[in-house]
Amino acid sequence: MSRTAISTLGEFGLIRHLTEKILLCNPESLKGVGDDAAVLSYCDKQVLVTTDLLLEGIHFDLTYVPMKHLGYKSATVNFSDIYAMNGQPKQITVSLGISKRFSIEELEELYAGLALACSIYNVDIVGGDTSSSLTGLCISITCIGEGEKEKIVYRSGARNTDLICVSGDLGAAYMGLQLLEREKTIFRGEKDFKPDFSGKEYLLERQLKPEARKDVVQHLAKAGIVPTSMIDISDGLSSELLHICHESNVGCVVYEDRIPIDYQTAVMSEQFNMNLTTVAMNGGEDYELLFTVPVALHDQIAAIESVKVIGYICDKSLGSNLVTRDGTELPLKAQGWNSLA
Amino acid sequence: MSRTAISTLGEFGLIRHLTEKILLCNPESLKGVGDDAAVLSYCDKQVLVTTDLLLEGIHFDLTYVPMKHLGYKSATVNFSDIYAMNGQPKQITVSLGISKRFSIEELEELYAGLALACSIYNVDIVGGDTSSSLTGLCISITCIGEGEKEKIVYRSGARNTDLICVSGDLGAAYMGLQLLEREKTIFRGEKDFKPDFSGKEYLLERQLKPEARKDVVQHLAKAGIVPTSMIDISDGLSSELLHICHESNVGCVVYEDRIPIDYQTAVMSEQFNMNLTTVAMNGGEDYELLFTVPVALHDQIAAIESVKVIGYICDKSLGSNLVTRDGTELPLKAQGWNSLA
Repeated sequence: MSRTAISTLGEFGLIRHLTEKILLCNPESLKGVGDDAAVLSYCDKQVLVTTDLLLEGIHFDLTYVPMKHLGYKSATVNFSDIYAMNGQPKQITVSLGISKRFSIEELEELYAGLALACSIYNVDIVGGDTSSSLTGLCISITCIGEGEKEKIVYRSGARNTDLICVSGDLGAAYMGLQLLEREKTIFRGEKDFKPDFSGKEYLLERQLKPEARKDVVQHLAKAGIVPTSMIDISDGLSSELLHICHESNVGCVVYEDRIPIDYQTAVMSEQFNMNLTTVAMNGGEDYELLFTVPVALHDQIAAIESVKVIGYICDKSLGSNLVTRDGTELPLKAQGWNSLA
Repeated sequence: MSRTAISTLGEFGLIRHLTEKILLCNPESLKGVGDDAAVLSYCDKQVLVTTDLLLEGIHFDLTYVPMKHLGYKSATVNFSDIYAMNGQPKQITVSLGISKRFSIEELEELYAGLALACSIYNVDIVGGDTSSSLTGLCISITCIGEGEKEKIVYRSGARNTDLICVSGDLGAAYMGLQLLEREKTIFRGEKDFKPDFSGKEYLLERQLKPEARKDVVQHLAKAGIVPTSMIDISDGLSSELLHICHESNVGCVVYEDRIPIDYQTAVMSEQFNMNLTTVAMNGGEDYELLFTVPVALHDQIAAIESVKVIGYICDKSLGSNLVTRDGTELPLKAQGWNSLA
């Protein structure tokens, strides 16, 4: 790949270069990149706003994350937050802090990933800011979406006896990260190392190119189901369940043997000598949807292929517990990300 | 000031601690911090979105910028972009990347500055993200505002013969920065240095605690004036004029002797042996409003105290020029920020 210095374009030239091919696809996006602010139209809908900051060395490691994947993931993790409100993502703004060590081609790759995700999820890039950074790459994305007034789902609506449901499977993204980190350690110093990842593609894809569960939100809508509470799983199932319980003022029971886990995740956790349940409960970066529905909807939920019932909501006084395979009750603990410690 | 390590709170604890006192004041802010996304209601208005990324060492230097001022400025520079669309800022999201060297008290100061600006401008903090950073402080703010459909002002509406108007005065923030940088160099290494800034307060305030021109937007509304184009001056008058000319497909003439400059700015540029007009044209960070109105509105514009007519829009073929005091025409050049070079 050729490497063109960013200085050949300058600040305004760089922004123009990266954004000139951006077309707007949503009628709600009236004016995108190129003025002091984007202009959006949300007549009878409510506006959802979420934001994520991704910093090199903290959230991603460019020794094994391709720029295009990074762009894709930066977008989808934001879409995931909008889906977790039972909404539809419509626009993003993209702010980049970039150091001189990056070339224009690398930034084009990053934008190509952003643009790909946006085109798949029907989202417009409507603004942003590009700045130099003294150190690593810094990506800040804000996503704006819409929701119908009566159908927006908060973390706070879970009620006693509600079923706890989760989409997809858990722990794979975390195992993908372990795999990449191990290969990085083994091959440190060797240029252009190409480790053999065959048979582990699913884990890598879950880590490097996660999808947001637009399909689950659509399935729920088709079935006429509005969850009582919902959150996306970014910090691990335990942590997110505790958020729902805290915000809804309830307790919960989840069953270890009900937690959906992919075969590859199980194989790798065995190889790494890690406890599989811990990986699935606390791994994080799954970007699956965790939600609750009234127990009367059991059959309708069971009919949705990618969703599994893993437990139920109970009274707050009973706490938040995991029932293990041998019937033991263990209190849930949030082992979420805490790199500020 | 006491220094409490961030690790004593953890990630979620820190977010809660910094945001728990945040009250929402706008009826459009339905749900703020604490879910996957904020929920906003903008029934018959259009939604404006702008974002800014501020990085330590690039946009601010913590050796002389107090955290509270930094918070205040981070907010007002975003409000300025919304006013530049002839809109009203309503909400912000705040993402912070913070390294371990910061204490909770310092982050409280930063939030106190953000909260102060928000309370003065009637804006709600509705969300954000807090993360660790391996290096410096990183602040990403997205501002959401509203505008009336027929009254939103773009950069692209300037027409031949329109008057070019600017609010306040120019170059002061830049001279404030020069002053701070000089004192930093002189006193390098000495702890707790207290340079004498008396008589230069205005320059420092313009640099450290800039205001957004809400008042100007209100004056225009009161006078029933909708500018044909508008932009806020962040990169210097020249650069912003060229943006308007480019987007509107026109040329312009501005008069050197019409450019509003404060007395302190003039005195300091003399002391620094800098060309005063260059300072005012290219200094940047003024956060004044630059706008155009039809020539028929001359008298109404002249009646607004804080606004000055500095030139007019002409045909594109005539170029974009500055007429100096001695009558010479000089083509405008954007000497805006280009630290990517």
